Amino acid sequence: MLDQIHLLSAVTVLGVLEQAYFFLQVIYARRAFGISPPKISGPPEFERIFRAQVNSSEYFPIFLALLWQAGLFFHQGLAAALGLLYLSSRYCYFKGYRTSSSERLAPMYFSAGVLWVLLAAAALGVLHFSLCHYVGLDVLRLLTV
Amino acid sequence: MLDQIHLLSAVTVLGVLEQAYFFLQVIYARRAFGISPPKISGPPEFERIFRAQVNSSEYFPIFLALLWQAGLFFHQGLAAALGLLYLSSRYCYFKGYRTSSSERLAPMYFSAGVLWVLLAAAALGVLHFSLCHYVGLDVLRLLTV
Amino acid sequence: MLDQIHLLSAVTVLGVLEQAYFFLQVIYARRAFGISPPKISGPPEFERIFRAQVNSSEYFPIFLALLWQAGLFFHQGLAAALGLLYLSSRYCYFKGYRTSSSERLAPMYFSAGVLWVLLAAAALGVLHFSLCHYVGLDVLRLLTV
Repeated sequence: MLDQIHLLSAVTVLGVLEQAYFFLQVIYARRAFGISPPKISGPPEFERIFRAQVNSSEYFPIFLALLWQAGLFFHQGLAAALGLLYLSSRYCYFKGYRTSSSERLAPMYFSAGVLWVLLAAAALGVLHFSLCHYVGLDVLRLLTV
Repeated sequence: MLDQIHLLSAVTVLGVLEQAYFFLQVIYARRAFGISPPKISGPPEFERIFRAQVNSSEYFPIFLALLWQAGLFFHQGLAAALGLLYLSSRYCYFKGYRTSSSERLAPMYFSAGVLWVLLAAAALGVLHFSLCHYVGLDVLRLLTV
Repeated sequence: MLDQIHLLSAVTVLGVLEQAYFFLQVIYARRAFGISPPKISGPPEFERIFRAQVNSSEYFPIFLALLWQAGLFFHQGLAAALGLLYLSSRYCYFKGYRTSSSERLAPMYFSAGVLWVLLAAAALGVLHFSLCHYVGLDVLRLLTV
């Protein structure tokens, strides 16, 4: 069973490492700008780094949920590859947002696009499985015959 | 194995769609009120929509964790049905909070109630499995005899 | 299959209970300080409790992701034990942060340490599995011979 999820697990662990990197950047920014917790407001440079981390945190469970459904019901390798694409676009988003609000936009749209592809793969996979399971209708086999 | 989780996966994908809808509402509200990131404060109408999304995001991993434990250890169909109930009460919460702070309360209490039922189902399921596994005690069989 | 995850499920349910406790503390603090939603700023005592809950929420998906990968690919019992350690250090973090910003530090570092151990276990487990699966190289067997 583990061979059906080990790529998803690897991408998950990588994703956690990325989140840890974002958390560390906020800690460094807090020190650099002298903003100690529980304060969360400060100069725009600090607020951009802080919001970039918060936004990435909010999307992390959504990303994991889609990665795993797409990997289990559609294709593990494809889901893992899309997962790597998402993580790298999130890194660009963080770097861009740190520079300016407008530079976060391109990687933000790209990462959202990757999530929609993962969502489509997950939805199609679950739908295909349910059609086979309940109606006995194998759409893929019909298409290839 | 996938037949034991496909309903949970379907509800998970639906839940992600709902989260996407909430994110979009915040983006529309940012445009309507002219509040560009990283700013998160503004008129009460904006702050209510923003907080409704943040609160739903915070609860999303908790919801998924309970949905899956209840579905795996108690009953998949029941867990998925409760999951749909939770997602619809979250939608009412978001619509209510957008109108006024007090209108968020009824669906908030209802959605919390659904989570407690999922938690009870998950806890009972894991407890029942552990009793069978370690002590060899099948409480359900004892009750039905 | 459930016997390979029931301890992880039990720790997950306990973790959700802890999150529920943190949410309740924020609700009580809102009442005590008269800060009704959507407001999130107030006296430092309130902001510390609020930030302690937000921080714990942000780490919760990361914790669950690592707990499950470490439990599936390294060792379920060890992962569950580390999970309990994490949850208790999060409780100390919350209690400490409520008292003062500086008292949150020791349990915060400790809980971060537990997460790094879980991450190492997960990464080693996935790596070991992948080496066996793709290269046919069983490092553990080589070490014990």
